[in-house]
Amino acid sequence: MDAVDKLGMTAAIEQAKNSYAEGGIPIGSALVYHGSAGEEPRLIATGHNERIQKASATLHGEISALENAGRLKPDVYRKSTIFTTLSPCSMCTGAILLYRIPRVVIGENVNFLGGEDLLRSHGVEVIVLGSEECKSLMAKFIREKPEEWNEDIGEETVA
Amino acid sequence: MDAVDKLGMTAAIEQAKNSYAEGGIPIGSALVYHGSAGEEPRLIATGHNERIQKASATLHGEISALENAGRLKPDVYRKSTIFTTLSPCSMCTGAILLYRIPRVVIGENVNFLGGEDLLRSHGVEVIVLGSEECKSLMAKFIREKPEEWNEDIGEETVA
Repeated sequence: MDAVDKLGMTAAIEQAKNSYAEGGIPIGSALVYHGSAGEEPRLIATGHNERIQKASATLHGEISALENAGRLKPDVYRKSTIFTTLSPCSMCTGAILLYRIPRVVIGENVNFLGGEDLLRSHGVEVIVLGSEECKSLMAKFIREKPEEWNEDIGEETVA
Repeated sequence: MDAVDKLGMTAAIEQAKNSYAEGGIPIGSALVYHGSAGEEPRLIATGHNERIQKASATLHGEISALENAGRLKPDVYRKSTIFTTLSPCSMCTGAILLYRIPRVVIGENVNFLGGEDLLRSHGVEVIVLGSEECKSLMAKFIREKPEEWNEDIGEETVA
């Protein structure tokens, strides 16, 4: 794992853990700017799912990181990587496409598989790390709070 | 235009105008629940683009309406229509797909054409009203603040 990926994924996992500790959905994200070749990578923003903490229907991990980043010039996104502990849902996939973020690094896609194919079909580089740490934290939450998890992905909970 | 559409589009256009009056991007949205046949339609939430007002990179009109709606049970979205004064970008398209909102009513798609085909390919009913009021307000904003508009859709402004 190179310096950019280590910086971004470490921050994303820390966000997921923080969210879990707060009683929230443990999905974290980070946006890292890597500019041109040789430039030092810079952590622009981090975020985590805020459904439970803020009663939010839109602050998924990635949306939260993008929101925390504030207003950026369009070319900043185009030289950045977005990190997420879990495969991005269709909303977060769409946000990545909106801002032409060229690279997405995903902790795991076993507990949920999102818009990876749509990203690839638009030329986005998608890397799935298969992180056991991400998988087990997410699986634990889904076991503990299945209804909250289903709500987060728009699924009805069958009793 | 039936009662649901009149309720939703009137609210969305009002939001767009309010945003313009605040110096913001004039895109408004509304979520209307229409439940089962015979039920009275209910305006769940409204919202407008908040890029300028809140320095927000994610609060497009539709995301803002969904956020203002708070946490809803998954089946509420499935019996609702989302209204927007402008064709939804890929992020807002993805949010509509996430929550399986079955019907989208769009004021206009001349100033921007978003993910209408992707919505239709997932079975979402998409109605474009071709509203002159929506078109002229949006066109006016784009003329006045092209850089802010480009930022909102991830486009670089060519000097």
